Amino acid sequence: MYKVYGDMLSGNCYKIKLVLEHLGIAHEWIHVDILNKETHAPAFKKMNPNARIPALDLGNGEYLWESNAILYFLSQNSDLFPSDSFLQARVLQWQFFEQYSHEPYIATARYINKYLGLPKAREAEYHGKQTGGHHALSVMNQHLSSTNFFVDGQYSIADISLFAYTHVAHEGGFDLSDYPISA
Amino acid sequence: MYKVYGDMLSGNCYKIKLVLEHLGIAHEWIHVDILNKETHAPAFKKMNPNARIPALDLGNGEYLWESNAILYFLSQNSDLFPSDSFLQARVLQWQFFEQYSHEPYIATARYINKYLGLPKAREAEYHGKQTGGHHALSVMNQHLSSTNFFVDGQYSIADISLFAYTHVAHEGGFDLSDYPISA
Repeated sequence: MYKVYGDMLSGNCYKIKLVLEHLGIAHEWIHVDILNKETHAPAFKKMNPNARIPALDLGNGEYLWESNAILYFLSQNSDLFPSDSFLQARVLQWQFFEQYSHEPYIATARYINKYLGLPKAREAEYHGKQTGGHHALSVMNQHLSSTNFFVDGQYSIADISLFAYTHVAHEGGFDLSDYPISA
Repeated sequence: MYKVYGDMLSGNCYKIKLVLEHLGIAHEWIHVDILNKETHAPAFKKMNPNARIPALDLGNGEYLWESNAILYFLSQNSDLFPSDSFLQARVLQWQFFEQYSHEPYIATARYINKYLGLPKAREAEYHGKQTGGHHALSVMNQHLSSTNFFVDGQYSIADISLFAYTHVAHEGGFDLSDYPISA
């Protein structure tokens, strides 16, 4: 049985949970406390040398990390991943957008606010995340003005990846009512 | 024929060039001047609403963006991409690592130094990128201490993605001689 090492409050981990439940894949969830730096313990770094959650233990000696790579693996040959290779690349395009242009702003602002309680020392960084986060939300909003899903009008792991931190973006100070499509 | 919109000095664009040449795929390269904000022109944003290079024009009305998604599309059914779905996910794992844990440090430090000439106003940001960049290099160095390639001992788009900015990391202030495996 698969084991997932993660924290359900982390969007990157929550993505994995959503896909596992949608596809009915049996798994064990093992909570990792990031504030106590459990990801930096030697045993964890044997699973993921980059010392980040989530990590997937396949039970055969292999460990996979990076949330969107785990989603790719779990969703193969399912209704959450297209069979056409161009559409597959389009799904990945939105997942790379999520990791580069969305998560570093929205998830990090939320982490500073929700996990750390917006300490004085990180206030400037928190405020510095707002412009980039709103840029990502505006790109998403524009795209979703003409379609209900990110790729080919079908629900896929691209939607799950972008939902993960968008649905809690307000915890990072992002007011989604600015984006008509969210209404 | 494919058209690639990019700047050959950008590692994210150079990746695409390496794969196109390796696979012998005919293409036209159209230079985009990022310092003149050509990616923010309305015509460019119709190709990529996220206003970043590279963008691939497939010639059929479709445009694909995000460098690693383009690599995925171009390398399907080639020797640069494995056929096993777990190994495919492993390739993507390293590509997501590249975009989240490597590029934002090493490419950004290089951009500030090489493109912008290390202006006073961005010196603190430049120096702030060093720790994260060295962390990424150490993760790569550790992995490559027991294998010549990132995934399954075979050359793949994972190697190309991580080579792109690593081979110019010194332009961002990273001394690769700290990493024995690079010798």
